[in-house]
Amino acid sequence: MTIASRPTIPAERYAERLRQISGRLLLHRVDAALIGVGPDLDYLTGYRAMPLERLTMLAIGAGRPPVLVVPRLEEPAARAGLRTPLDIATWMETDDPHALVVSLLGRDAGGGRVAVSDRLWSFHLLRLQAVLPSATWSSVTAVLRELRMVKDHDEIELLRLAGAAADRVVDQIASGRLVGRSEADVATEVRQRLQAEGHELPEFAIVASGPNSASPHHEASDRVIQAGEPIVLDIGGALGGYGSDTTRTLWVTGGDERNGPTKEFRHLFGVLLAAQQAATRAVRPGVAAEAIDRTARNIIDGEGYGENFFHRTGHGIGLEGHEEPYLIAGNDEPLAEGMAFSVEPGIYLPGRYGARIEDIIVCGADGPIILNNEPRELRVVAG
Amino acid sequence: MTIASRPTIPAERYAERLRQISGRLLLHRVDAALIGVGPDLDYLTGYRAMPLERLTMLAIGAGRPPVLVVPRLEEPAARAGLRTPLDIATWMETDDPHALVVSLLGRDAGGGRVAVSDRLWSFHLLRLQAVLPSATWSSVTAVLRELRMVKDHDEIELLRLAGAAADRVVDQIASGRLVGRSEADVATEVRQRLQAEGHELPEFAIVASGPNSASPHHEASDRVIQAGEPIVLDIGGALGGYGSDTTRTLWVTGGDERNGPTKEFRHLFGVLLAAQQAATRAVRPGVAAEAIDRTARNIIDGEGYGENFFHRTGHGIGLEGHEEPYLIAGNDEPLAEGMAFSVEPGIYLPGRYGARIEDIIVCGADGPIILNNEPRELRVVAG
Repeated sequence: MTIASRPTIPAERYAERLRQISGRLLLHRVDAALIGVGPDLDYLTGYRAMPLERLTMLAIGAGRPPVLVVPRLEEPAARAGLRTPLDIATWMETDDPHALVVSLLGRDAGGGRVAVSDRLWSFHLLRLQAVLPSATWSSVTAVLRELRMVKDHDEIELLRLAGAAADRVVDQIASGRLVGRSEADVATEVRQRLQAEGHELPEFAIVASGPNSASPHHEASDRVIQAGEPIVLDIGGALGGYGSDTTRTLWVTGGDERNGPTKEFRHLFGVLLAAQQAATRAVRPGVAAEAIDRTARNIIDGEGYGENFFHRTGHGIGLEGHEEPYLIAGNDEPLAEGMAFSVEPGIYLPGRYGARIEDIIVCGADGPIILNNEPRELRVVAG
Repeated sequence: MTIASRPTIPAERYAERLRQISGRLLLHRVDAALIGVGPDLDYLTGYRAMPLERLTMLAIGAGRPPVLVVPRLEEPAARAGLRTPLDIATWMETDDPHALVVSLLGRDAGGGRVAVSDRLWSFHLLRLQAVLPSATWSSVTAVLRELRMVKDHDEIELLRLAGAAADRVVDQIASGRLVGRSEADVATEVRQRLQAEGHELPEFAIVASGPNSASPHHEASDRVIQAGEPIVLDIGGALGGYGSDTTRTLWVTGGDERNGPTKEFRHLFGVLLAAQQAATRAVRPGVAAEAIDRTARNIIDGEGYGENFFHRTGHGIGLEGHEEPYLIAGNDEPLAEGMAFSVEPGIYLPGRYGARIEDIIVCGADGPIILNNEPRELRVVAG
């Protein structure tokens, strides 16, 4: 798949987003937004750069045109990377870039309210705070979240492509040899296949076999996969900037039917599948994010596995692998058409085994639009 | 190359580093160090995790044993990833992890001095500042830099392996077809070859052809490489956690000698090579970091290219691709045996072309130990 064949966010969308954030600064009574390298900068300008010790920052003073501050040596890269025209201010290696940023904000920033992007390194925030010691600091997510949470048509298309690519990789891995290989070896294959299916770096690949399947964020290890155990495969990355993230649970028999799933595991998995499906079906505009979590949790609790489901039901996804809205108790955010998030309950019996099922769901006008469509049933394979 | 064949940092080294940082907190009159996911945490504990919105943090209150705070769902991953025994405190999804961290620091942190890791997300720092509104905040690099800057034998071995692997990839790319391919296509090949040579994610691959070679941090584009132009190839990543970073400049002729380098480019390149070599030779214990920069800059200035060399001469390298010491005017840090850094002057004629040469150098007892050993001369290839 070449980059040219992908949908891209139209250039005019970035100008529109920049106009919207300026209005929102007023609404949120924020005097300035300071946006470092990362998904917020990508969302507003299309510019993607590596986060480093040299400051790159979009400075937006309320009522002023935004200015992108970049190191002089990255000026041509920034001009090539921006998807919308912007004023650029450069700094030389021995200049103070944090003072430069503050100088672009106007007088109001001095004792005012300054919002910064969540992923900005503390290295930079501490320097900005030293230049503006009387300012009050907050997260720019309060200003940007309502924009970023609701995906437009092109963003949903990219999420759909990313999801379909990840689905193909799940099927390729589940159809291949697994028993006798190390988790790390399978994880390497997952990463290579995600790239072959059009994903960019960085990809993640949880390959959690046997007792490791009870560790939700297991790091693929040298453990050799055995016949007669489950594998939780949780994989994803980004395609055209937009994330994929899907989980399927397999059971490998090594070709011997006597190595099939235990009765207990089949029961546990049945409960999990019912919970995941009920939570997915509950998705529609106006339903609170926490209600989706509660739907899955009630079913799992009711079967006595409540303590074995010790994470939230899901997280938003878009330019970040994890973003708002989070499907978690206490989050009364009403779902809205265009929000995209994972629905991924899990049940884990520590030291023994576990299972998880995860799809990316877009909240449609009438209910869930499901972006991962590999069969969710426990997939019993020879491996 | 399998992971098993690599040197690793011995487990006892982590316990030693943790002891050292505790002593240094006292020395720097810091009441607490808060270390998020990233190179500082890796350095102190060996634990590598993805930086995410869920807080993972090593909390070290002065005079107290360090505690690793992790989300409950990552507890097994943290126990598997730690290279040294540590107390672990877990938090459940709806707990306040920032309050938990602060509760572990003891009374002194309240109005005291708290140092945080540079890469900690502002998302987390702002929440910590809200829990400790009277504390004074600083960078933990002031406490850790002297430890991290000076590499031990095992770290140098890993840097050496990473450098040799990157050298092989440079040679493979320079020996292959280039003319008629896009920069992005060549960059993909670079990444695949870096992985094949044992590098982990993420790798970087600057492939800057023709006029793009005048952009030091050029992002590989769809531009098709032409006969009769230079290519700046700046590649690297990490191997066993330790960085590689090397730059060579090629000139592709397409097999026709009439497409060889211009006289001007050969002159410019000769000046650059002399500067890079003089700077390298100047490396020895006790010499100031800025003196290495000045050595390269004086030669380039003297030939009238001063304005065309608009970045520092180098950066430290280790668990981070860029770290202290920086070879830049104003940094009077004396080099010490075991410090590792790049020496990478460049000369750029905007809109036309440019060149850069980069090696990773370790400061040895008697002078430079050079970790990149591909020929530095302008490599004229058919491509």
